[in-house]
Amino acid sequence: MLLNVLMALTVIMITARLVGMLFARLHQPPVMGEVVGGLLLGPSVFGRLSPEAAAFLLPPASAPLLSVIAQLGVILYMFLVGLELDLPALRGSIAITLSISLASIVVPFALGVALAWQLYDALAPDGVMFASFALFLGVSMSITAFPVLARILEDRGLQRTHLGMLALTCAAMNDAVAWCLLAFVVSVTRATPGGAIVTVALTAIYVALMLTVGRRVMISTVARLDRANRIGEQSLALVLVAVLLSALATELIGIHAIFGAFLIGAIIPRDSAIATHVTERIEDIVRVMFLPAFFAVTGLRTEIGLVRTADDWLLCGVIIVVATAGKFGGTLLASRIVGLDWRNSAALGILMNTRGLVELIVLNIGLDLGVISPRLFTMLVIMALVTTLMTSPILSALLKSRPWAEPGQKLTSSPGQ
Amino acid sequence: MLLNVLMALTVIMITARLVGMLFARLHQPPVMGEVVGGLLLGPSVFGRLSPEAAAFLLPPASAPLLSVIAQLGVILYMFLVGLELDLPALRGSIAITLSISLASIVVPFALGVALAWQLYDALAPDGVMFASFALFLGVSMSITAFPVLARILEDRGLQRTHLGMLALTCAAMNDAVAWCLLAFVVSVTRATPGGAIVTVALTAIYVALMLTVGRRVMISTVARLDRANRIGEQSLALVLVAVLLSALATELIGIHAIFGAFLIGAIIPRDSAIATHVTERIEDIVRVMFLPAFFAVTGLRTEIGLVRTADDWLLCGVIIVVATAGKFGGTLLASRIVGLDWRNSAALGILMNTRGLVELIVLNIGLDLGVISPRLFTMLVIMALVTTLMTSPILSALLKSRPWAEPGQKLTSSPGQ
Repeated sequence: MLLNVLMALTVIMITARLVGMLFARLHQPPVMGEVVGGLLLGPSVFGRLSPEAAAFLLPPASAPLLSVIAQLGVILYMFLVGLELDLPALRGSIAITLSISLASIVVPFALGVALAWQLYDALAPDGVMFASFALFLGVSMSITAFPVLARILEDRGLQRTHLGMLALTCAAMNDAVAWCLLAFVVSVTRATPGGAIVTVALTAIYVALMLTVGRRVMISTVARLDRANRIGEQSLALVLVAVLLSALATELIGIHAIFGAFLIGAIIPRDSAIATHVTERIEDIVRVMFLPAFFAVTGLRTEIGLVRTADDWLLCGVIIVVATAGKFGGTLLASRIVGLDWRNSAALGILMNTRGLVELIVLNIGLDLGVISPRLFTMLVIMALVTTLMTSPILSALLKSRPWAEPGQKLTSSPGQ
Repeated sequence: MLLNVLMALTVIMITARLVGMLFARLHQPPVMGEVVGGLLLGPSVFGRLSPEAAAFLLPPASAPLLSVIAQLGVILYMFLVGLELDLPALRGSIAITLSISLASIVVPFALGVALAWQLYDALAPDGVMFASFALFLGVSMSITAFPVLARILEDRGLQRTHLGMLALTCAAMNDAVAWCLLAFVVSVTRATPGGAIVTVALTAIYVALMLTVGRRVMISTVARLDRANRIGEQSLALVLVAVLLSALATELIGIHAIFGAFLIGAIIPRDSAIATHVTERIEDIVRVMFLPAFFAVTGLRTEIGLVRTADDWLLCGVIIVVATAGKFGGTLLASRIVGLDWRNSAALGILMNTRGLVELIVLNIGLDLGVISPRLFTMLVIMALVTTLMTSPILSALLKSRPWAEPGQKLTSSPGQ
């Protein structure tokens, strides 16, 4: 058993590194290479080319064990994403960012619901209510991957420009809203009709408590720790226990464990010594060991062979077009309305269309809930990959045609002004 | 499933922290508190006091999943122990340390074998050869816990004194030799009579290769990385993949995965930037999350109720006396012979009697192999605890009666000189 897990982990980590390095050369985010590495290990490629080798290196018996490692990894990862979230900063420039990020959610969400209406008969699993199916499809269209976006901006040195900061703030707000929406979808899907109200109410109470009492307790605890200069193993343990307890609380409420983890991250002040310390101590191992396990688990569940006929691929294309149209279009329009020029609005639109691995987390939740079928899961995974991978080249094209907005330069000025 | 694991991990981490803090107050190593915390969670205490609560918080279904986390943790931990090992330093002052550490292995090993002769009929599981049983008992008597020892010395500020350095070097050498012995025992036990020779031969070849070619490759790689100043996520991944590959290799050879991990740690130069970086990045999470899971898994397998009758407890006492007599006596005599005074020899003897959690790793391997019964496992766990916990108070008694040897002060001078 140990042998199986060790073998699987080794294969997974090596594949993730190699494909990640290849992607870095292609000027794509390495993490998307790791995602593709996971797909390569699954039944779509490796399992098809050499079923025996796949069964030997990644035996089905190791799947539940890998899955636990993957889920722990995602919990820790979403905690780190929350930790990067700068709640007070979200309050500044609230009008612009709020309008853009709301548009970047509402438009793709509405299009997703409309699409669900078309797809429900053909693709929804038996017994799934239309409401759940439509809500889930809406949410899956409106995700923006805050962490992958941050990485793309960093790679290009854009994170301190106005555009970069605007994109990051919008994405962060998008994240927060999208997770609340997803929590709602999960509660509606999981619960009996009456139970959904209880779950939603409990969720609202929990989030409100965390953002008020929880945040205040956290700020004073963190300040005490910072002053006492006693940050070490003990405080890491304290934070991790808080993450686990909150994950447990949200899981018991009936939404997913990652919300709780994300919330704890969000209420810890981002510039505290403890946030820096904890990030430093767990980020690398989460990235290097845990996340590739999650990508592999996702890859093992994705079977591109399920998208077979020309019609299937056409449908897959439609999903990509709808997702992009909603996210890019919604962001573009809202940006224009609040006063950005066309080019910067387009750049922001394409940036917000990055779905990255956050989308994969959402899709796995949907598959676990049974609200989407393996076939639709596969299509949506392809959509997540394509929309994320198109970001870098299109951004490059926009970059080439004009020098980029420098730090301090206003985005609303038209070229030449 | 996720809920079970989260719940179990939360309970485990909280218990480990609380009992660890209690032990720190009692001037005992906190890690031994975490070990006791694991025992408390098992059938010996929590399971007896409240079987329903235990089944709810630590459901049997979560055991295999916890076990994977625990085993990964032990692999990473033994890698870190190997990383702390300073191979070149072991070559200095070779005569004294070699004689002391050999004596501190040979004497308890021999006593363990003698004890096995007495216990074989009553306590050996059916079908276990005497050779395996005796060898295993010998090894289990001759373990010294290098990491717990290092922590005790640090807590008392003794790690830079002559005595401290001598103890650390002896314990490190003891570690290396004991693990080779254990590898031998495992290979003999696991293999068919003919296969044992193959396993032993393969192990010898693997260890020799790692200490020569492997070490040279590692030194040049590490030097290249240090020069290029490119230490980050990528190099952590490289090291972890090496650890997994080596763990896999030793597991395939037929000894245990942790040898491979330990070996990789041992051949990485201890003072390299990468060793520091990797330790920094994974040590805390291994200590805070993974090791407590291991202690809990150990605790769940330890049932003090199996040591029932007065005879059983007498036997348990005999095991403790034999273990201590062998370790303390062997070290004391060898230290006297190479010229240490009585008091320092006694201090070294009691330090080497620290078996800590390394012993637990060994005992778990023995239980997995079926070479010891759950009852003997429980007795040996008690022995490991008692011998480790007696170290601090006895050391304090020795400390009180005389000012301790200061850095630079010779140990071989008698008091008053």
